Amino acid sequence: MLESVSATAAVVQGASGSVMADHRTPLVRRCWYVAGRGDEFTRQLRERSLLGESVVLYRTEAGRPVVLQNRCPHRSFPLAKGSLEADAVRCGYHGLAFDSGGKCVDIPSQEVIPPRLAIRSYPAVERGPFVWVWMGDPADADPGLVPATPWLASQDWTYASNYVFLGANYVGLHENLLDLTHFTYLHPTTLGTPEYARAPFQVEAGSETVRISRLVPECDVPAIYRTTGMRGKMSRHTVSEFLTPALHHASAVLRDLEADGVYTVYISHFVTPADQDRTHYWFTFARDFQIADQAITEFTERSALHAFNEDVDALQEIARMHGSGPDAKREISLKSDQAGVAARRILRSLADREAGPA
Amino acid sequence: MLESVSATAAVVQGASGSVMADHRTPLVRRCWYVAGRGDEFTRQLRERSLLGESVVLYRTEAGRPVVLQNRCPHRSFPLAKGSLEADAVRCGYHGLAFDSGGKCVDIPSQEVIPPRLAIRSYPAVERGPFVWVWMGDPADADPGLVPATPWLASQDWTYASNYVFLGANYVGLHENLLDLTHFTYLHPTTLGTPEYARAPFQVEAGSETVRISRLVPECDVPAIYRTTGMRGKMSRHTVSEFLTPALHHASAVLRDLEADGVYTVYISHFVTPADQDRTHYWFTFARDFQIADQAITEFTERSALHAFNEDVDALQEIARMHGSGPDAKREISLKSDQAGVAARRILRSLADREAGPA
Amino acid sequence: MLESVSATAAVVQGASGSVMADHRTPLVRRCWYVAGRGDEFTRQLRERSLLGESVVLYRTEAGRPVVLQNRCPHRSFPLAKGSLEADAVRCGYHGLAFDSGGKCVDIPSQEVIPPRLAIRSYPAVERGPFVWVWMGDPADADPGLVPATPWLASQDWTYASNYVFLGANYVGLHENLLDLTHFTYLHPTTLGTPEYARAPFQVEAGSETVRISRLVPECDVPAIYRTTGMRGKMSRHTVSEFLTPALHHASAVLRDLEADGVYTVYISHFVTPADQDRTHYWFTFARDFQIADQAITEFTERSALHAFNEDVDALQEIARMHGSGPDAKREISLKSDQAGVAARRILRSLADREAGPA
Repeated sequence: MLESVSATAAVVQGASGSVMADHRTPLVRRCWYVAGRGDEFTRQLRERSLLGESVVLYRTEAGRPVVLQNRCPHRSFPLAKGSLEADAVRCGYHGLAFDSGGKCVDIPSQEVIPPRLAIRSYPAVERGPFVWVWMGDPADADPGLVPATPWLASQDWTYASNYVFLGANYVGLHENLLDLTHFTYLHPTTLGTPEYARAPFQVEAGSETVRISRLVPECDVPAIYRTTGMRGKMSRHTVSEFLTPALHHASAVLRDLEADGVYTVYISHFVTPADQDRTHYWFTFARDFQIADQAITEFTERSALHAFNEDVDALQEIARMHGSGPDAKREISLKSDQAGVAARRILRSLADREAGPA
Repeated sequence: MLESVSATAAVVQGASGSVMADHRTPLVRRCWYVAGRGDEFTRQLRERSLLGESVVLYRTEAGRPVVLQNRCPHRSFPLAKGSLEADAVRCGYHGLAFDSGGKCVDIPSQEVIPPRLAIRSYPAVERGPFVWVWMGDPADADPGLVPATPWLASQDWTYASNYVFLGANYVGLHENLLDLTHFTYLHPTTLGTPEYARAPFQVEAGSETVRISRLVPECDVPAIYRTTGMRGKMSRHTVSEFLTPALHHASAVLRDLEADGVYTVYISHFVTPADQDRTHYWFTFARDFQIADQAITEFTERSALHAFNEDVDALQEIARMHGSGPDAKREISLKSDQAGVAARRILRSLADREAGPA
Repeated sequence: MLESVSATAAVVQGASGSVMADHRTPLVRRCWYVAGRGDEFTRQLRERSLLGESVVLYRTEAGRPVVLQNRCPHRSFPLAKGSLEADAVRCGYHGLAFDSGGKCVDIPSQEVIPPRLAIRSYPAVERGPFVWVWMGDPADADPGLVPATPWLASQDWTYASNYVFLGANYVGLHENLLDLTHFTYLHPTTLGTPEYARAPFQVEAGSETVRISRLVPECDVPAIYRTTGMRGKMSRHTVSEFLTPALHHASAVLRDLEADGVYTVYISHFVTPADQDRTHYWFTFARDFQIADQAITEFTERSALHAFNEDVDALQEIARMHGSGPDAKREISLKSDQAGVAARRILRSLADREAGPA
């Protein structure tokens, strides 16, 4: 199943000589991003910042999720402070109403509605537990490109899930997710095992995706799996993939070296810039074993939240260091950064492409 | 009485093709602004920000209100942190003293006082309950141009009054005050009645003032007048005028359609930019009926404060939207904005005139 | 003893025609600054901002104080959030370790250590209760230039000491320390006596130091010495010296005009910019009399802290005034500012010299 997600990954290693993205690189807009959990789209208007734009989220009477520009084009009042009437949003200042396509359908003080009095309606698609939004040119929004996460809807799987707010740019998070060498130092109580940091790895970098895999032939069961049925010595095969600026996917396959058990875990990271310096970060932690055991799900969620908050703390500490000292912008990369550097080159290349010819 | 205030208003409608002021337009300085209530000028030094300048307010022993530059010209200590000695302010850092005209009258550490060691003294005039200040070139300060508000000193009237701090630029407040179509949506419980939003209106825009009037032939008594003697169906004639960047005046004449009663209300809005992004906002709500009934005054004050705080909330929400999204600066105006747009053109034209030839 | 400190002061008065430093002048880096009290250098990593750079402070197992760049050159994680292993700092993100010289000594994920993977190690010297740091080019760091403060280590003296954080630029603090005319106004309850503000003074300004001295032939004992043995009328001779951008030294010699007592006090001000707008400020208040009386020390510390906090409050009030009004940058100097102006010219001249040819 994982293969279907990363089928486009090629086997070019460390190819590009282009510059890496960092926290000042313009955000990539031509991409499907998670706008929120499906259950956040209700009959109550909800304001959110996505890629530096203020939007309002709601659900039509027929159940379709809607993402509209939050700023009323008349006098800039935030529509989320207005009200929902059937499928239209009515502004709380002068009462202008906009339908779910962004078209103005009522101006209380006049009969004629100028056609240009419209707001942006962002293409939105619901898939499993999430609603995805397209923040680029709507003409380019192809629902077929929304990433598939079938295991989140399958009866053979279950998952833990939660949200973390990151007070830093998204580039650092993507690099963090491709980097397995920090487990031992940043996550000693959840993910890190001493064998992990030095295990050999293999990186496959394509033009738009990056894949890093690592096999630890023999290790103890990591702490995060403590409440599962796993016991004794295991082999641990992990694959971590940067698929789009909005999505990072990881899998772990643990084989019991004494008994017959094989345990598969899919961890998905849904990364959506709120703006240049803040990031929404949803995750799912799915497994195909002991799926009825709610205690495992809860322990996994707590453990993952704990670990991901360690990442968030680290990335926010790093953001605090930006600009400190005369050479604060200089970073020196290591061999283990190969995958992260490849993803940052992709992010830079995508941003450059959107900026158009210089 | 109102006519005396707006005598200069001409009958040019939607004339100017000039650009509108917005929250980034330089503040208009050649104007009398309210610096504070008279009872805020005491023998205690009081610091305030007016049009981006820090000033110190006090009252001389003879009772004259004074507005001085707050920054000591020696080492920039705020004089409001010093002390008042007779009519002079003594700095709390090195003891320099300045008289109410801004002239340095004592330097404890030396005998000779350099003539250039002076601070700005802003022309100030007390009228009724307020002290007005001239923030432009003092040579242009004509006390004859201070707006007259005789009903605030008349025995035939009484008024409620209060202050609201607005965390946004003053242009939006002026436009709000000329706009009657938002009553139904923003002030449903105090000022808005359904008939109001669609009633026809008439705009008279002069070169420096704007007047909008509206007659609702038959309506219920608005909630804000609930504790008065008004009952049953009324006609409601309202006039709202932008008189200067510092003053907005409105009147409402309600006639009882069944009995003989005529009720006149004068609402004055005193608008003083603290700086580009913050505004002082005093109001008086005066009436010529049941003037001895203190309960009406108190209810009116509470209701007006409630309604004006709704405006303030809305304007601060709008300020929060400024800069959100790629087209955040674009505003589309409606027919009902005719008066507000005219006032914003005047504010822009006054600001351009002060900036001088480009 | 004082003479040894100020030996380089010449007798040129009001020499330079150069411009004065102010709060926007670049910080002077070629100077020994106090980095902290010796007891702040421990086996716990401690983060501090010095001259706009984030550094980490600790002490080696052998007891030597260390000041290192806080930002890991790999991915900018603050090393102070890592851990100390023997004399090396290990990063909390990927485990890179740096020795006390700034050299990388371990990368857990690879064998080879690139030589350029190093951090800045700032020369540090411990003298008496303080550790001094050199923030300029390390090649220029001459430990022989670290100011001597032998009375802080002498058995014939004792001292009170404390730290104040100043939320303003250091230039204003230096000027404040050379200015004796503000005592009467800002410190009426601790340092000021009426005779003090008008007493004649003498200024000696050299190319890098400034000295101001003042003799009050007869005065009461200042309040800060109330708990000492001083009684009745005294003569008071004070000398205040700007020695470097990091150090200001003052002495007061009080002679009992009736009995035989001579009392000497040395007050040292250790001034270290945290950045352009914030300053670390340590002080010592030393005396050569009644040195066993701990109550005097405690009273002196409380009184000095009270007085210096009045200075800090004033300087922060002034920082708040910066930028208020159109002529906010203009300062007019008095005769009594002669010493302060000389120091500000030196600070400007040192900053210009570091900036190199324009």
